[in-house]
Amino acid sequence: MTTTQLISEIHRKKSFLCVGLDVDLGKIPKHLLELEDPIFEFNKAIIDATHHLAVAYKPNIAFFEAYGLNGWQALGKTIRYLNEKYPEVFTIADAKRGDIGNTSAMYAKAFFEDLNFDSITVAPYMGKDSIEPFLKFEGKHAILLALTSNQGAFDFQTKLVDGTELYKTVLETSKSWEGSENLMYVVGATKAEYLADIRKIVPNSFLLVPGVGAQGGSLTEVCKYGMTDDVGLLINSSRGIIYASNGADFASAAAASAETLQQQMQAILNDR
Amino acid sequence: MTTTQLISEIHRKKSFLCVGLDVDLGKIPKHLLELEDPIFEFNKAIIDATHHLAVAYKPNIAFFEAYGLNGWQALGKTIRYLNEKYPEVFTIADAKRGDIGNTSAMYAKAFFEDLNFDSITVAPYMGKDSIEPFLKFEGKHAILLALTSNQGAFDFQTKLVDGTELYKTVLETSKSWEGSENLMYVVGATKAEYLADIRKIVPNSFLLVPGVGAQGGSLTEVCKYGMTDDVGLLINSSRGIIYASNGADFASAAAASAETLQQQMQAILNDR
Repeated sequence: MTTTQLISEIHRKKSFLCVGLDVDLGKIPKHLLELEDPIFEFNKAIIDATHHLAVAYKPNIAFFEAYGLNGWQALGKTIRYLNEKYPEVFTIADAKRGDIGNTSAMYAKAFFEDLNFDSITVAPYMGKDSIEPFLKFEGKHAILLALTSNQGAFDFQTKLVDGTELYKTVLETSKSWEGSENLMYVVGATKAEYLADIRKIVPNSFLLVPGVGAQGGSLTEVCKYGMTDDVGLLINSSRGIIYASNGADFASAAAASAETLQQQMQAILNDR
Repeated sequence: MTTTQLISEIHRKKSFLCVGLDVDLGKIPKHLLELEDPIFEFNKAIIDATHHLAVAYKPNIAFFEAYGLNGWQALGKTIRYLNEKYPEVFTIADAKRGDIGNTSAMYAKAFFEDLNFDSITVAPYMGKDSIEPFLKFEGKHAILLALTSNQGAFDFQTKLVDGTELYKTVLETSKSWEGSENLMYVVGATKAEYLADIRKIVPNSFLLVPGVGAQGGSLTEVCKYGMTDDVGLLINSSRGIIYASNGADFASAAAASAETLQQQMQAILNDR
């Protein structure tokens, strides 16, 4: 999917919501555990209930790999379901990959060709040749970790590198990589005040913003500092939506929770 | 596996060789493609032919994920085969994972519990809380990227953070993390001259050293600067061993190539 298509969907749905699919079998409604593929059935119900409110879905790959072959199978079914039934949504493999060139090329093959995701999150530590293999695919995107939502972000990301914070060096450096027009960036909502500075470096790029909800970030603050003329934001909520209820009403509770966020987003879009 | 057991195996086999399993279906002998699970059959033959020469095996997870469900299945069979038939070898999931705490905990579950690897490679960008979930398992190890073997290592890893290179800051900082006794580090063989400085920060930790062979690093140089009293090194070779021949003799060619390295290692160990 191109960013133009994504922007058009954002305006059509009045939403820049991304729903994170972090499926933990210990947290989903008990009655689903009796089904053949509880992970997929849970995802399917969540997607069906929220697809008109969200523009993107972000399966968190760790939560699938933790269930081995069954998990990997559920991931395949989930992405196929999204691509077949809701081809208008933007799909993100939250995988935080990155390795030497020939290995990154294999990860790109796995997530862009075999699974057919629109994008994948990637980690910058190994530099240019670890990311460029992801940037060669037309209509596909690599979402580079810049400033993450967790406490550990302060261990290295905000340290000064030749006088500039490491995450800013990452943002600036990445702009020179081949295919950089296919880059987006991860910036945690818990660090909204940093967004003004980030927008000076990447004024137009899409930012994937986790951390609203369970992690404590504020939607209003993120939009105040991070929104562009083309919106330029995908706000992710995982646990706040998918675990809104663990009863039989989990899907409608998820929809209600997603709608609360979508309504706030619509108000922000209308007020611009 | 504990490091004490690993050290004992190194002395018994007179080897600190790690064989990297980066299986590309385009590069393995054609006759294997007719079998039901060519990836596993290739790995099994390589492992059977080299197990007396190597102390560790390192499946590169990207190369399995690239083949989807079949790849994930072959990974499961490969690690089960290693654990059942050669429980004395140290197994490394080369996965370069790392995410917020609850997600890293799921990756740890995937690789330490479900697949039962002895260790996994992890990326430091997200800091302490992204790595500590991997350090809670007795007899399991997280191998943290410090200075990698690729050109992109110079993009960020060698940049000065408050006057010290980032990779040194990563090494120093990681020593304070809970469970740091379960940390090992990745240091590329292509940067052997950095090893003397690295040993000042982590004098005793095991280092996983890729880049000997196809990437051009020198075994002698690595040992000169990086070896400790307890050896403290695992030298990885992937393509140089597993693709030594693409004919029917691929397994014996791999053994010959592994033996050349093992003999060099034995000479180095004897000369100390």
